[in-house]
Amino acid sequence: LSNSVRNLPIGVFDSGIGGLTVLAALRRQLPHESFFYLGDTARLPYGTKTSATVERYALQAVAELVRRGVKAIVVACNTASAAALPALLKQYPELPIIGVIEPGAAAAVAATRTGRIAILATEGTVRGGAYQRAIIQRLPHAKVSSVAATLFVALAEEGWISGEVAMLTAGTYLAPLFADAAAAPDVLVLGCTHFPPLADVIRAVAGERVQIVDSAQTTALALHELLNARDLAANAGAARLAFAVTDGEERFARVGASFLGMVIEASAVERVDLSAR
Amino acid sequence: LSNSVRNLPIGVFDSGIGGLTVLAALRRQLPHESFFYLGDTARLPYGTKTSATVERYALQAVAELVRRGVKAIVVACNTASAAALPALLKQYPELPIIGVIEPGAAAAVAATRTGRIAILATEGTVRGGAYQRAIIQRLPHAKVSSVAATLFVALAEEGWISGEVAMLTAGTYLAPLFADAAAAPDVLVLGCTHFPPLADVIRAVAGERVQIVDSAQTTALALHELLNARDLAANAGAARLAFAVTDGEERFARVGASFLGMVIEASAVERVDLSAR
Repeated sequence: LSNSVRNLPIGVFDSGIGGLTVLAALRRQLPHESFFYLGDTARLPYGTKTSATVERYALQAVAELVRRGVKAIVVACNTASAAALPALLKQYPELPIIGVIEPGAAAAVAATRTGRIAILATEGTVRGGAYQRAIIQRLPHAKVSSVAATLFVALAEEGWISGEVAMLTAGTYLAPLFADAAAAPDVLVLGCTHFPPLADVIRAVAGERVQIVDSAQTTALALHELLNARDLAANAGAARLAFAVTDGEERFARVGASFLGMVIEASAVERVDLSAR
Repeated sequence: LSNSVRNLPIGVFDSGIGGLTVLAALRRQLPHESFFYLGDTARLPYGTKTSATVERYALQAVAELVRRGVKAIVVACNTASAAALPALLKQYPELPIIGVIEPGAAAAVAATRTGRIAILATEGTVRGGAYQRAIIQRLPHAKVSSVAATLFVALAEEGWISGEVAMLTAGTYLAPLFADAAAAPDVLVLGCTHFPPLADVIRAVAGERVQIVDSAQTTALALHELLNARDLAANAGAARLAFAVTDGEERFARVGASFLGMVIEASAVERVDLSAR
């Protein structure tokens, strides 16, 4: 492989800003890599839409990333990973593509002692059942429950990640899981990339004995292994970071900063149109 | 005008399900009229997107309604009314088209005694300032404030329209308006079609002395007048009601029932693709 391929960026795709929590973990794990982040903000959220529609949107987004030149793809959105990964792998058999569901399931299985795992996710991810399947495949006796925590997305986007509204919302969603102590989960999976900013609130409600896992860190490890296995790791050099969205560069930069953990300049965010692809 | 034109349906367009609160008022006011409701559920919500993008989506939606044959258009979405009404009127100069902002502003001006009016709306509607302009045009000395109550959309869609989370959320958004009693508004405008299901909670927080107005009823009156002025009222006969969405017929039927106030059969909801227009 030529160095020009190794030094191509890694394409990171999400419905909007939530995937920036994954991008933050990728940059920590792979500081020499360049990333091109694409957020489909004109059509977010994906979590309440059907699998067929999310699959179509994801194919359009990855076509755009491929057109620009990337050496690998991270689908940094649980809903899109669940709905579109098979179609993406079929469409681009040569391209390394990973989602966040398999790494999240692996993290949950590694963390549980009782085998009782609960998934907090969007409606679409819960309905599809991809986490349940991925966990059961690794740990056949696991008891997997799931909660569609739709409001968490709006709370995270509004920046209400602490305080009474966030606490009560988390309490409402989590209460059924912990109603029967003997059946309570010992691992909660944050099955949506919008949820990590709410981790402290979720921990306060769920209690210290419950482990909270998200897929960002394990996805970064999985990507690291994949790049090494395919001899695609970048040579040491200036890592580049670029952003494109389908709508609202200013809002993306403003709201996204708290997800990425660094300032994003609105002027550095490009606008693209995916519906034309 | 031939009876065949008079008996065409009225096209009602919204980003998703919120416009069903307007449709409910239209049906009460105009029981002999037929309606075709189009919800752009594949791209909702519009409230966090830019005006240019919302205008493009609205032009695509109205093109679809015109293709199917309608005698008038109601833009039953505040964000789309604010962003797209000028472009729609320019594109279809012969077609009666009304939005919800002007009727909502008229209702607010009729209701206020102090001239202090507050708008609760989405980020996009607040940013555009269309309500402020429409109110000031009618009542130049009015003092108009506005609050982007983003989470109300998610609360209404989740069905959390009473209880502690809804109360605290309303309290958080409304507190700044009522911090100084001498400057407090006497009218609150529900400037988003998702908000009427939360009216009881908003009233409980704001107090009985504040009047809450929404644009649904005044929009229905405005449409009634417009149909009469253009000699377009339907002859008495069987009023038809049809629905189309761009995604998620099942979810639309399930969540929409509480907005419309009647059961919607998922099998009666058609799927359309607007992005191809």
